[in-house]
Amino acid sequence: MKPGFALHLDARDGAARAGRLATPHGVVATPAFMPVATYGAVRGIAPEELRDAGAQIVLANTYHLHERPGEDVVAALGGLHGFTGWSGPWLTDSGGYQVFSLAERLELEEQGVTFRSPVDGRSRTLTPEKAMEIQQGLGADIAMVLDECPDPGAEPARVRAATQRTLRWAERCRRAHQRSDQALFGIVQGGGAEGLRRDSARGTVDLGFDGYAHGGLGLGEARSLRSDMVAVVHAELPDDRPRYLMGLGRPVDLLDGVAAGVDLFDCVLPTRHGRHGVLFTSQGLLRIKNARFRDDPEPPEPGCPCPCCAAHSRAYLSFLVRSGEALGARLASLHNLHFYLRLLREARDAIASSGLAALRARIEAVAEIPVP
Amino acid sequence: MKPGFALHLDARDGAARAGRLATPHGVVATPAFMPVATYGAVRGIAPEELRDAGAQIVLANTYHLHERPGEDVVAALGGLHGFTGWSGPWLTDSGGYQVFSLAERLELEEQGVTFRSPVDGRSRTLTPEKAMEIQQGLGADIAMVLDECPDPGAEPARVRAATQRTLRWAERCRRAHQRSDQALFGIVQGGGAEGLRRDSARGTVDLGFDGYAHGGLGLGEARSLRSDMVAVVHAELPDDRPRYLMGLGRPVDLLDGVAAGVDLFDCVLPTRHGRHGVLFTSQGLLRIKNARFRDDPEPPEPGCPCPCCAAHSRAYLSFLVRSGEALGARLASLHNLHFYLRLLREARDAIASSGLAALRARIEAVAEIPVP
Repeated sequence: MKPGFALHLDARDGAARAGRLATPHGVVATPAFMPVATYGAVRGIAPEELRDAGAQIVLANTYHLHERPGEDVVAALGGLHGFTGWSGPWLTDSGGYQVFSLAERLELEEQGVTFRSPVDGRSRTLTPEKAMEIQQGLGADIAMVLDECPDPGAEPARVRAATQRTLRWAERCRRAHQRSDQALFGIVQGGGAEGLRRDSARGTVDLGFDGYAHGGLGLGEARSLRSDMVAVVHAELPDDRPRYLMGLGRPVDLLDGVAAGVDLFDCVLPTRHGRHGVLFTSQGLLRIKNARFRDDPEPPEPGCPCPCCAAHSRAYLSFLVRSGEALGARLASLHNLHFYLRLLREARDAIASSGLAALRARIEAVAEIPVP
Repeated sequence: MKPGFALHLDARDGAARAGRLATPHGVVATPAFMPVATYGAVRGIAPEELRDAGAQIVLANTYHLHERPGEDVVAALGGLHGFTGWSGPWLTDSGGYQVFSLAERLELEEQGVTFRSPVDGRSRTLTPEKAMEIQQGLGADIAMVLDECPDPGAEPARVRAATQRTLRWAERCRRAHQRSDQALFGIVQGGGAEGLRRDSARGTVDLGFDGYAHGGLGLGEARSLRSDMVAVVHAELPDDRPRYLMGLGRPVDLLDGVAAGVDLFDCVLPTRHGRHGVLFTSQGLLRIKNARFRDDPEPPEPGCPCPCCAAHSRAYLSFLVRSGEALGARLASLHNLHFYLRLLREARDAIASSGLAALRARIEAVAEIPVP
């Protein structure tokens, strides 16, 4: 890994591992959940609230920051650490996911992907080299290669072609990446095919990166298939490099990943669910807009020490969310972030005490159950 | 005034007065600005942030809380003090303003006003007695009578009729109001006519209330006319009762009121302007979305100790607001609340040191000037 970066593994429980990832802007206890700061901020949440919730690393969306304010502005103001109020570790995605999913894609070629910007309507091209240039400008501790993620359910030949292009793009990213204070992670693709996943992992490891990510998962595939893909890839990855499962997911999905040896996660679910009044609790999902909470004096999750549960009733939170009052989305999102970050702390502790299976069983039992 | 309430006047500067208004839930230093918690929360702002900004009393909109969650729910959860996270003093409006301005009004009669609820489309009637019942359920420290506010620019006969009906409704409110731990304020109407304002003030004082409010101002009338109306009314009001200028306004409007002897203000301007990225500063109005702030590393208002200015640059705030990220509205609103609450503290200090004229001149000089 680059100077200033190191992964120290402290404990194992089966394939699961607990450790500390050192970065230039701080140490991250792993496995770790990274809240998503789409526009350089986690929807409505202040940096000190993230810290209080236990966040140690935050993810920003390269594509959105490139469109506005532009990486030149971010760089001039000290990178993401100086521009935003979060001075701890950052990770940026490559921007590819947004281009493939949000923008009107015009053309996908070997050189890169050309698309129409939804902000100003102009045509832009994102290449591996451009993805590196933007992310080096943003200055996160960890950057990601540009990959091509095929549609789930695409034909095998299409998945194979995307996986092979991802490798070629990874090589170009590696060559174009210059910052010695920024780690660069490769991304393994391969859809739901074991052989492709294995080949992709081997090829990516041969190129050599500071860490490795699973791409193209969490797109509707069965949990068992995903677990198989993750295991196949992990068998090929060096033990001393961080492993990142991108974009997932529900608490059970995170614990699946932890059990398989994943170190890093990100997902918009805690904040998206929060905005819609859906709360994660140790008893299951609590839909706060439900009429039965209208006059419920209990905290949203009894015993939860988060600022929402410590100070407010289900009745008040239900009212705020139903009224569309911004404080409702803020409080519910904050609760969910506390839940996710606590869950990962519990997972770390469980790994140290060989208790991960019990934690998984507990979370699995209530995964889809509404709070009574 | 009712037991538990008292207004102690500590200093005067011309007609201006600085004092302390005791209520069952705490003492309010006057003149005071009351942030508006439309849906039981000041748009996206947490109660502890209001306290940190120096707020001592908060206003809630009776009409919205009646529609949802209903005063029965609020009462069962300990009134506004228990239901929301703000346990300090509360004031509720009568609900009349929202009915007259937001709802589809069906009929205005001596008995009350019948309107169609924008929430469920059903017909409802708000009477003076109903306004008291709802506000007693909400349990604020200070309740307001139901008044009829004529359209600005209505014919003199129409204004006279509304002013006389306001008096008759005030009498019914006084009779219907039972809570001994809740102050009830009368409202003076009279449009822009000196004689009507004076008559309305005299009639309201004859009924006897714990405090008195100016209604029907801040609706586009000239500043000088408003000052005349306020002065005419103040000549009729007992010195030992709080005076409240409802719904105003810009910093210059607040200082006009302070100079005339007003004790309480409320306005949505700090939060509404904040949501649109317009910041009040000692140098004038700062429109943070302006392109010239795109890469400005300065805090929004240099020297301001608020959480927004202490931690963030104009560039970041501009980006957040332009991106529609909720944290932008939150930070800008918080800055504006700090500005308003600090302005009122400065006004209190100025009254004690006979410096109010100098403060007014300073604020007036930059009132409409954009920050360069």
